[in-house]
Amino acid sequence: MPVSMSVEQMVEEKARQAKAVAPIVANMPTDIKNRALINIAEAIVDRREYILSRNSEDIEQARKNKLSEALIDRLLLNEARIEAMSESLRQVAALPDPVGEIIEGWKRPNGLVIQKVRVPLGVIGIIYEARPNVTVDSAALCLKAGNCVVLKGGSEALQSNIALTNVIKQAISEAGIPQEAVQLLDTPERAAAQHLMRLNQYIDVLIPRGGAGLIRYVMENATVPVIETGVGNCHVYVDASADLNMAEEIVFNAKCQRPSVCNAAETLLVHKEIASEFLPRVAKRLIEAGVEIRGCQETLRILPQDKKVIPATDEDWDTEYLDLILAVKVVSSLDEAIEHINRHGTKHTEAIVTRDLKSAQRFCAEVDAAAVFVNASTRFTDGFEFGLGAEIGISTQKLHARGPMGLRELTTYKYVIYGDGQVRK
Amino acid sequence: MPVSMSVEQMVEEKARQAKAVAPIVANMPTDIKNRALINIAEAIVDRREYILSRNSEDIEQARKNKLSEALIDRLLLNEARIEAMSESLRQVAALPDPVGEIIEGWKRPNGLVIQKVRVPLGVIGIIYEARPNVTVDSAALCLKAGNCVVLKGGSEALQSNIALTNVIKQAISEAGIPQEAVQLLDTPERAAAQHLMRLNQYIDVLIPRGGAGLIRYVMENATVPVIETGVGNCHVYVDASADLNMAEEIVFNAKCQRPSVCNAAETLLVHKEIASEFLPRVAKRLIEAGVEIRGCQETLRILPQDKKVIPATDEDWDTEYLDLILAVKVVSSLDEAIEHINRHGTKHTEAIVTRDLKSAQRFCAEVDAAAVFVNASTRFTDGFEFGLGAEIGISTQKLHARGPMGLRELTTYKYVIYGDGQVRK
Repeated sequence: MPVSMSVEQMVEEKARQAKAVAPIVANMPTDIKNRALINIAEAIVDRREYILSRNSEDIEQARKNKLSEALIDRLLLNEARIEAMSESLRQVAALPDPVGEIIEGWKRPNGLVIQKVRVPLGVIGIIYEARPNVTVDSAALCLKAGNCVVLKGGSEALQSNIALTNVIKQAISEAGIPQEAVQLLDTPERAAAQHLMRLNQYIDVLIPRGGAGLIRYVMENATVPVIETGVGNCHVYVDASADLNMAEEIVFNAKCQRPSVCNAAETLLVHKEIASEFLPRVAKRLIEAGVEIRGCQETLRILPQDKKVIPATDEDWDTEYLDLILAVKVVSSLDEAIEHINRHGTKHTEAIVTRDLKSAQRFCAEVDAAAVFVNASTRFTDGFEFGLGAEIGISTQKLHARGPMGLRELTTYKYVIYGDGQVRK
Repeated sequence: MPVSMSVEQMVEEKARQAKAVAPIVANMPTDIKNRALINIAEAIVDRREYILSRNSEDIEQARKNKLSEALIDRLLLNEARIEAMSESLRQVAALPDPVGEIIEGWKRPNGLVIQKVRVPLGVIGIIYEARPNVTVDSAALCLKAGNCVVLKGGSEALQSNIALTNVIKQAISEAGIPQEAVQLLDTPERAAAQHLMRLNQYIDVLIPRGGAGLIRYVMENATVPVIETGVGNCHVYVDASADLNMAEEIVFNAKCQRPSVCNAAETLLVHKEIASEFLPRVAKRLIEAGVEIRGCQETLRILPQDKKVIPATDEDWDTEYLDLILAVKVVSSLDEAIEHINRHGTKHTEAIVTRDLKSAQRFCAEVDAAAVFVNASTRFTDGFEFGLGAEIGISTQKLHARGPMGLRELTTYKYVIYGDGQVRK
C-alpha cells in the first residue's frame, strides 16, 4: 500500500480486495480449502522462529507499557501454543464443508424449482483483543466456510498478528486460494476498527470476539450487521424438588471448573423450601474452593456473614464476575426464578436442577436464553461440547444464530430457482 | 400513560410492557393465536365506520399538508381495503404455526440430549411509512409467530394506526392474548423511532418496512439488530445462447408487470453477440408500454437515440427506478455480466436467460443475491410466489434470513438440553 494512504483508505482498500475475491473463495472446492488449512498448520510450525521473534517484540513492548501479567500471558506465544494452533487447524480441515448443502427444495405449481442452498456469508470482519491465536483460528474457520476475512486484532498483538497473517497468506496462496482472502488491518489505530464497522459495501457481517466493553462498542457503532457474542451472566436455579447431591455437583462445576469463561455460573437461585438445607452444604464446598458468596437477605439469614459471605447489592444480579464470586438469592417460586433470570440474564445459558417434570418444562419454555439446561452444568454451552467440532463464538442475540456458532453458522443461504420461461401473471 | 411523560419515557414504557408479556405470548397455544387473528379479522370489518372516520382525519390532514396524490392513495382506507386486510388476516390464521418445531436433535456421548427448538424472536420493532395496512399485517404475522410487536408508523397515518391498534388490542385480548403484546408508538415525533432503535434491553429485532431512505436511516442509527429489507436494483442478463422469445417475455414481465415494486428489473444486460438482434425487438415492446431506455454507448449504437432512448450515466447503474425506466448495457461476456451485477446489485434478485448449462450454473454460483433465477422473471421473489404463505418483507442482508421472509423467518431457535447430573471434566 502507498505510504501516503490514510487509515480509512487502507481499511477500505483491504476490504475491497477481500470483497473482490469473495466469489472465488465462495466457490472454492473443499479439497483446496482443506489443503490451505493444512498448509497453514505446517507453515506456522516451520516458521515458528519468525513468529516467536515478532511475538517477543509485542511482549517487550507490553512490559514497557506495564500491561498486566494476565494480559501478557494472553499475548504470549511459545512452541506449545504454536503446536496447539497447528493442531486446531488440522481439526478444522477435518470437519465437513458446510457450503453447497441443499437445505430444502420444492417445486411450485407453475413449474419453478426452488432450492435453498447453503452459501458463505461473504466477507466477515473480526474485531478482537490480545490473543494472537484468534488470528489463526478466525482465518481458518472463515476460510473453511468459504468466506474471506478482514481481521482487526488488539494493538498489543500487532507484530504477532502481522507475522501470523504473512504466514497464512503465503500458505493459502500455495494451495490456490487468493492471498487477498485474508486481510489484516496492520495498524494500532482504533480508527481502523471504526471505519471497518461502517463499510457495509464490502463487509457482510461483523463478529466481535472479546470482553463486554469491546462487544458493546461494536454494537453501538457498527452499521454492518453484527453477531453479538459472549457475555454470559448465567444462573443455576435449584428447584424445591432437586436432588441436592446433583445440585451441589452442578453448582460447584458451573462456578469453579473454569470461572473466567462466559458459560460459568454467576448467580445461584435457590428455592426457599430447600434453602436452609442446601445453602450451608454448597457454601462450604464453594468457600473451600475460594469462592466469595454475595447473598440476598434470606441467604445471609441462613449463612452467617463473614469474610467469604457478604451482602449482595443490586448491581450483583447484573454482574458477570468471570471470577471466584457467586451471587446467591433465595426465591419463593419457580416463577420468581424465571422472572429474575429473564430480567438479569444475558440470554446465554441458564440451568435448572429439578426432579419435577413440570418445572423442567416450564423453565425450558419460559426462560429466554440461547441454551437452557435441565440437570447439567452451564459449562456445556460450547461448540465442541455440543458436537459442532469448532466454535467462533457464542451468540447471545437472536438473529441468525444462537448459542455456539460453528462452521454452519458462518454461512447463509441463497435461493436458486430454475424455470423455463415463467413470467408473473 | 401519564401526560407528563417524555416521548422517550413513553417508548420505553411501551417496549417494557411488550417485553414483560413476551414469554406468555411465546408460549401461547396455536388455537388461541388463530382465534385472536380471526377476532381481528371480524373486528376491523365490524368497526369499519370508526376506522374509516379516523382514516378520513388523516386524509384531510394530508390534503392540508399538500401531500402527493400517490401518498394520499397509499394512506387511504375504504371498504374494499378493509375487506382485503380482513381476508389477509384469515389467511395468516390458516398458516401452520412455526413455533415449537424441533429443528434437529442429537445425543452426546456423555448422555446429554440436545434439541434445537424453534422459538419466537421475542419483541419485534417495526418502523414503517404511510400505509395503514402494514399495521394490521405486521401485528398479525408477529403474533402468529409468537412475538410481541412495537409499531411505529408514519406520522401521516397516525389516526388510522391508533384506530386499528385499538381494534387489534381489544380483539386479541378477547381471545386471551394480553393486549400489551401489540404496542403503537402513537406520536408523530421522529424521536420515538430513534429511541426505539436503541432499546436493546426490550427490542430483540427491528424490521424497517419502507423506502430506501427509511431503511438506510434505521441501519445507520439502530443498535438493536436490524433485518434490512426491500431495496432491489435487480438485473436481467440475456446470455448469448438465450431463447430470444423467452428473453423478451421475461424482460418485459420483469420491467412492466408492476414497476413500482422491489423485485421489478431495473437494468437489462445483453450479451454482445445477440445485442443487435435482441435489443431492437425488446426495445420496441418496452417503448410501446411506455418504458424509457437509458442505454450504454453500444446500446445507443444499436438503438437510435430519441425521446425514449437516452444515454445512461454512471448513476443509472446504481438506481432503483421503481418506474417505467430501464437501464440497458451490452456486455462482452458472462464474466462481465456477473461482475457488473455484483458491483451494482443490491443482493435482492438477479436473473439469467440462457440455454447454456454452464452459464446457468456459473451465474447461480457466482452472483451474490438472495434469489437467482434461471429463465424466469425476477417478479417471482415474493413470499406468496415461493409458497411461504405470507411475507413480512424481503431481506437483502445475509444474517438470519435472505429473500422473502415468512412466519418461520420471524422465529429463532433455542437449545434445550436434558441431562441427569452431567458436569464438565
